[in-house]
This record gives sequence, C-alpha cells and structure tokens, in this order.
Amino acid sequence: MHESYSIEPLTQEPWVNLFRVQHNHKSQTPRTWMMCSRKQRPIEDASQADAVVIVPTIDTADGRKLVVTKEFRVPIWDYEYGFPAGLIDEGESVEATIARELKEETGLDLVKVNHISAPVYSSAGLTDESCVMAMVQASGEVSNIHQEPTEDIETVLMDAHQIGELLSSGKKVAAKAWGLLYHYCQLGRID
Amino acid sequence: MHESYSIEPLTQEPWVNLFRVQHNHKSQTPRTWMMCSRKQRPIEDASQADAVVIVPTIDTADGRKLVVTKEFRVPIWDYEYGFPAGLIDEGESVEATIARELKEETGLDLVKVNHISAPVYSSAGLTDESCVMAMVQASGEVSNIHQEPTEDIETVLMDAHQIGELLSSGKKVAAKAWGLLYHYCQLGRID
Repeated sequence: MHESYSIEPLTQEPWVNLFRVQHNHKSQTPRTWMMCSRKQRPIEDASQADAVVIVPTIDTADGRKLVVTKEFRVPIWDYEYGFPAGLIDEGESVEATIARELKEETGLDLVKVNHISAPVYSSAGLTDESCVMAMVQASGEVSNIHQEPTEDIETVLMDAHQIGELLSSGKKVAAKAWGLLYHYCQLGRID
Repeated sequence: MHESYSIEPLTQEPWVNLFRVQHNHKSQTPRTWMMCSRKQRPIEDASQADAVVIVPTIDTADGRKLVVTKEFRVPIWDYEYGFPAGLIDEGESVEATIARELKEETGLDLVKVNHISAPVYSSAGLTDESCVMAMVQASGEVSNIHQEPTEDIETVLMDAHQIGELLSSGKKVAAKAWGLLYHYCQLGRID
C-alpha cells in the first residue's frame, strides 16, 4: 500500500488556518488528523522554517548575561518569558531576520552568530510550524523604541541565578526557551 | 481604558479549533489576533497544561543514556526526534500521565520523577497549548507493544556523542527537545 495524504482547509484566513488531513499512514483505511498551519502549502513546506528564535548573550560590567524577553501574548492573555523571535519575511535570509528582530524587539545589535540549528518543530502533533534556533552574541543598550505598536516586550538581562529564580517562580515560560534556561541554570553560568 | 478581549470560534471540531480574538491590549481600538486551541475554554484555561513532555534518563551497561523517541507526525509527514509525550486525560494527575505515556510509548517503567516544570508554552503567538516538562529516571526494556495502533514510535537510547550527531544531521527535532539535547551535547554527558 502506498502511503499518502490529502489535506482540506476548513478556514480561509490570511495568517493561520485549520486543516483536516486524511491519510493512510500505518493503516488500511484512511484516518483523520487535524492541524493548523501558517503556510500556503501546509505539510509540503514543513521543512521551511517559519521563524527564528534568537538566543543572545551579552557581556556587561557585571559579567555575561542572557537576553530574555518578557512579552505579552494574546493567546495566553499574559506575559511570557522567552527569547526574541520573529517570522522570516518572504525572501529574507535567516541572518537578516536575526539582526532585524533582535534590534526591533530588544534594541540590541547583532555581533556574531555562533550557531544556527536545523528547523525545530513547535508542536508537530498540532502544527507544521517550525523555527531555527540561533545562538548569538549581542551588544549595545536595551531599548524598546524599535518595537512595532502591537508589540509589548520588555528585555531582561539575566544571570544564571536569576534564571533559576524565574524557572521556580511559576511565571509563564516559552517551551522553546525552557531547555536552554534549564541548561544555564544547571551550569550556574552563561556560556 | 480597561483591557479586554472577545473570542469567536471559526470552526466546531472535536480536537482543535481556530479562533478569532478581538482585543484592545495597548490599543484604543480593537485589534484582531488569530489562534488555535485544543481547549474548551481557550485563553481562559491557558494556565492548565494540555500535555506532559517526559525527559527520561536510563542507566545501562554502557552508562547513562537519554531516552529519545523517533515518532511519525502527520502535520510534518515525517519522523521527528523528541521525547515521549502525551495529552493529560481529563481528571488524570500529571504523575499518572507520565507513568502511562512512558510505558505506552517506550515500554519503560517510571522509577523516579526528579523535576516537573511549570507549564511551558509551545508557541504562544499561535496557540495556548502548554505542557509540563518532567525530568525522570526510567528502567526496563524498550518495547513498542504498548503503543496505540495509530502510533509509530521508535525509542532510541542516546549518549551525548550520539545526540551531537543527531543535532548536526539536519533530521527533524522537536523544539521542546532541542534545548535539552543541546545541553547534554555541550556537557558531553547525560546527567
């Protein structure tokens, strides 16, 4: 049996849509899976990253800090701690997105990109949304003057002790940030 | 101005739906945000975790390993490397979900829960979906006989070197797993 799927949009919205997928993976008869996607060609373009998540460190007079954002997110109607991030504009390179979003959201300048991951998937049971994780060095002064009017982001420079306090505070944290925050907390330092 | 929102379902599906949110956060006039949710009461119940992600270590004759899953996911029509995970059944405790999903997906037994995180958010610009991250110790033999017929999961026990190879392979990796995989890779050991 050749494995295949067909996908039907249930909505016709500009930014994100719901889809019903009929497929026969591991099955003689079609099964249904529901998913949402930001893509024009969902599933088919799953390998193309939608967004970048930027993990910046910065050297300060008090030592090396991690650049963490506290951003208001409508779907949880609360502030979420995480990293600067943004959608990759059509035709834009990942490196350009990194420099642009870092400046817009935090006011900081990109010094160096240390590592860019392969695309990672936000929640592959729910959506084909993916992003690359970019480990970078930043410099400059924190500022919110470059933010869009719709954005509500505070930038916080954190050492490992402050990260530990954040993780035990019960405050809302982005899943994509948690593993790295846990890493720096366990290490006891940012590097 | 009092900040508020109203939310309108655009679909009426059993598992996940698309919603239009009108809100006035930081705005004199209502703005629109699109989101999807698995919840009966989206946004309102954002603090309740939908799922658990289980990060198991296991001691073997070859030393300590990380328990990684390679699971077929319909929304990306491919295999994804990540951790055992599953939705919390209604009325089920987090601890019960951890033991149940670990056994179902990997065949392994739960020995000890070392840490359970606060809820973390898959992609808070897109959905209110959240999960807790559970750091656990496992024992026993890997087996797929407890999997549901719809599941296609292979369990792989990895040391830090193998994790490094995975991260540089370009294979699809879950965003919730990436930071921890990076952590073990940087440490050069699993602990």
